[in-house]
Amino acid sequence: MSESWLDQVVFDAEGLVPAVAQEASTGKLLMLAWMNREALAETVRSGRAVYWSRSRKRLWRKGEESGHTQLIKQVRLDCDADVIVLEVEQVGGIACHTGHSRCFFRKLENGLWVETEVVLKDPGQIYDSKP
Amino acid sequence: MSESWLDQVVFDAEGLVPAVAQEASTGKLLMLAWMNREALAETVRSGRAVYWSRSRKRLWRKGEESGHTQLIKQVRLDCDADVIVLEVEQVGGIACHTGHSRCFFRKLENGLWVETEVVLKDPGQIYDSKP
Repeated sequence: MSESWLDQVVFDAEGLVPAVAQEASTGKLLMLAWMNREALAETVRSGRAVYWSRSRKRLWRKGEESGHTQLIKQVRLDCDADVIVLEVEQVGGIACHTGHSRCFFRKLENGLWVETEVVLKDPGQIYDSKP
Repeated sequence: MSESWLDQVVFDAEGLVPAVAQEASTGKLLMLAWMNREALAETVRSGRAVYWSRSRKRLWRKGEESGHTQLIKQVRLDCDADVIVLEVEQVGGIACHTGHSRCFFRKLENGLWVETEVVLKDPGQIYDSKP
């Protein structure tokens, strides 16, 4: 399959686009991460979300450590072609490294950021159980 | 009301955070834009979405020209405190300057970006009807 669709995506000065992951079945907003061209290409080829880790400066195959992969149901692009939306199935029901179902677990309430969602799994259990 | 909640938000090197707007009633992802500290503060104070226009380099009170304001129902923050989610009511049912209900009107289908949503109002009618 031609990858000319990739040429239509506008990456920023660092070669990145923001990618928003939304749970396909519920519409719940899970997280926002970044993709370079290679990450986006591999995401579409493999059917699993691959991001670019800005802190580790390498491809981040979501779930590579946690097992919490994201299966791609749909890929969308915005009007300016510089934002990606992934509609995904979140394996394990946990998108966030904190053990919450999603990264957006806080809301602003009377001038305070309040956690509105519980930790489903202790991060130690998510990441320390590797061989 | 103290604005210490603002100090917890991590703005990038340009002083910006991405803000994702989601329609509160349907869960539909509408758009992603950027906010500086002032835009976020005014958004919360006024109850209407205010972004930072990177192209025009000024505050962009969403709907200031089109009338398509976004009324804030909830403001959320992610785990790293560097992404904002706005749950909004989209006045006029049109979030995108193209006249689509939202900016994410294209999906990837067999290697092509395909429009899956119609133009609800001609952009000329949205923007040229000003006195």
